[in-house]
Amino acid sequence: MKLYNEILAAIESLEYKENSQLPSERYLSNKYHVSRTTVRMALNRLSQDGYIYTVHGNASFVQPQVFEQPLSGFYSFTDELKNDNILIHNDLIDYQVIQLDHMLAQKLNYPVQSAFHRLIRLRSAQNYPLMLETTYLPKGRFHQLNIELLKNKGSLYEYLKRKYDFHVDHAIETFRPIMADRKERELLQISNSIPCQLLERYSYEEDSIAEYTYSVIRGDKYIFRVNLK
Amino acid sequence: MKLYNEILAAIESLEYKENSQLPSERYLSNKYHVSRTTVRMALNRLSQDGYIYTVHGNASFVQPQVFEQPLSGFYSFTDELKNDNILIHNDLIDYQVIQLDHMLAQKLNYPVQSAFHRLIRLRSAQNYPLMLETTYLPKGRFHQLNIELLKNKGSLYEYLKRKYDFHVDHAIETFRPIMADRKERELLQISNSIPCQLLERYSYEEDSIAEYTYSVIRGDKYIFRVNLK
Repeated sequence: MKLYNEILAAIESLEYKENSQLPSERYLSNKYHVSRTTVRMALNRLSQDGYIYTVHGNASFVQPQVFEQPLSGFYSFTDELKNDNILIHNDLIDYQVIQLDHMLAQKLNYPVQSAFHRLIRLRSAQNYPLMLETTYLPKGRFHQLNIELLKNKGSLYEYLKRKYDFHVDHAIETFRPIMADRKERELLQISNSIPCQLLERYSYEEDSIAEYTYSVIRGDKYIFRVNLK
Repeated sequence: MKLYNEILAAIESLEYKENSQLPSERYLSNKYHVSRTTVRMALNRLSQDGYIYTVHGNASFVQPQVFEQPLSGFYSFTDELKNDNILIHNDLIDYQVIQLDHMLAQKLNYPVQSAFHRLIRLRSAQNYPLMLETTYLPKGRFHQLNIELLKNKGSLYEYLKRKYDFHVDHAIETFRPIMADRKERELLQISNSIPCQLLERYSYEEDSIAEYTYSVIRGDKYIFRVNLK
């Protein structure tokens, strides 16, 4: 168990990175001053618990962490990840007040040129970038945003709830696989062989859209799950 | 309206293909012996109704048809598309009785080497291939499948219901964007720049899995929608 915990700590601190090969049994046995049988037992347990995987029965690799998001009710990534004790971090990539063009106006059912806050955030968990979120909020409903509060660990929903009594009645989400463009791939740190999930969220207060978010989510890191009755 | 219907018929018969440019106003006006104002009115109406789109205000293109699937309850693609009066077609690509390997056995919670029907179907709507479905059904529950009945317009669920009193208590679906492999791309008639949705469905009768389906769905043709309360 001691060796198991040591290796797990090395995985969690990213000393051993996702999909990289773990050192050999011999190396681990020397490094931690334990028998190779002990090493094998620790690796077996790590494999059973889903932290590593083996190829051809001997080489061990670090299992990439995949987040599973149930679509059972309205959710916030911040809350979901916090519940799992996952360290989250938001980088503010851009903030502007914009005027809706024709396409967005039609999408959001607002007049053309309505003023909206546009907030672009890169959201990361355990030091991995997970998704790039572009959020549109009507300025008529939310007059001023304190952008500083949304950096790092800040939750947008909590902030809007506290300051503007924001309450989502219902939300519609659509899912579509896309290839991220070059800038998105750089921010998400993925190669052009990894497709992403495009998630669009329309949050309603009564019958009007109070939030629209366009998220590009790493396909290798996120699975969405729905329970159909 | 007559011209509107003529152009629509040409789109639906694939004479004018998705994303291809429509002939010019002048050409249409000559072809159908109507004024250019009439052509313009017909095109405007087609654009409003979502059948075509315009670029730079003049050139008109055929809008690709995208299906939207709500994830509100247990659904069958056959039923959904039938409700929209969409012509569907199933091609049986392969049928075998297989024995579960370790990975599938773990996934489905059955003993290794359990016998399962494995059915691979290519499902098309309006002559477009939409998805490639690989369905696993436990032989212990469904002794014999009449494969002939599942070709063309046949619904698997209806057949299983009729013959085996199959009733899904609940189903779990997961979504993940993937790149299809070469064989899948050929069957789906897509280039390697189009990512797909990988949908896995686990259908339960009481606590055991009575169906597992692994679907590769064209990302340019299908959007999934969920309503969050």
